[in-house]
Amino acid sequence: MRYWEDFEVGHEAEHGSRAVTEEEIVAFAREYDPQPFHLDPEAAAASPFGGLIASGWHTAAIYMGLYVRNAMDDVAGMGSPGVEELRWLAPVRPGDTLTARSRVVDTWPSETDPGRGTMVGENELVNQDGVVVMRFRARMHLRRRPEPNG
Amino acid sequence: MRYWEDFEVGHEAEHGSRAVTEEEIVAFAREYDPQPFHLDPEAAAASPFGGLIASGWHTAAIYMGLYVRNAMDDVAGMGSPGVEELRWLAPVRPGDTLTARSRVVDTWPSETDPGRGTMVGENELVNQDGVVVMRFRARMHLRRRPEPNG
Repeated sequence: MRYWEDFEVGHEAEHGSRAVTEEEIVAFAREYDPQPFHLDPEAAAASPFGGLIASGWHTAAIYMGLYVRNAMDDVAGMGSPGVEELRWLAPVRPGDTLTARSRVVDTWPSETDPGRGTMVGENELVNQDGVVVMRFRARMHLRRRPEPNG
Repeated sequence: MRYWEDFEVGHEAEHGSRAVTEEEIVAFAREYDPQPFHLDPEAAAASPFGGLIASGWHTAAIYMGLYVRNAMDDVAGMGSPGVEELRWLAPVRPGDTLTARSRVVDTWPSETDPGRGTMVGENELVNQDGVVVMRFRARMHLRRRPEPNG
């Protein structure tokens, strides 16, 4: 198990890749973000985006899926209080393959809970052309390493 | 149609409510955020959250679904470049009913595109007990009102 103590500022990692399909973009949009340029290929073609693009919230969820599956299986996560400066920098289109990566930019122990610490990650999704499509900073609460004889 | 010019600082609105089911929380988690406290009621009961809670990204997507369906059907939206200070303030649990509301906190015209303006909304989801469960500020690009003889 990895704990708060195991993440130092500067620690970088990649968290795998996955392809994004038109079917998935439309399914997410139908449920959570039914704007024409996320939902309808014809309306999207006539929009400023020139074709179907993924909802920004879908893009964020794709990052999280990669991160949880590839970075958190052995991490003592305790949830997140929030996110700073989320930027959707370039469109995500059907057929794109997105790779998740992150860098630890800050950490501190909780002042109220001796069993918890906070880590701040700068997180990105990069597409198959090397274009960063989304960047955000997220706080994550982690358990601290238990004392050996605690 | 409502354009950038139709949103002034201070403009407030509610955007409807909806109930959140355990089935939906688990379905979202399975796809996008498979942490035990979003996915597995038993593991969640043993977690610091004391029971199943919705993924924060699911919560954000629920806000967006309400906003798009109830506030954007007549708005000339052109997407969003990003979000500031997203805060998950309280857990969202199965059976909660969430209401979306927003307030315009800033607007400015584009310096490069005379057909576009930006609006900044402070957006919230409130549960059935009046607890704000999520708050964030989002930028949205809107079309400007066409000139009458333009």
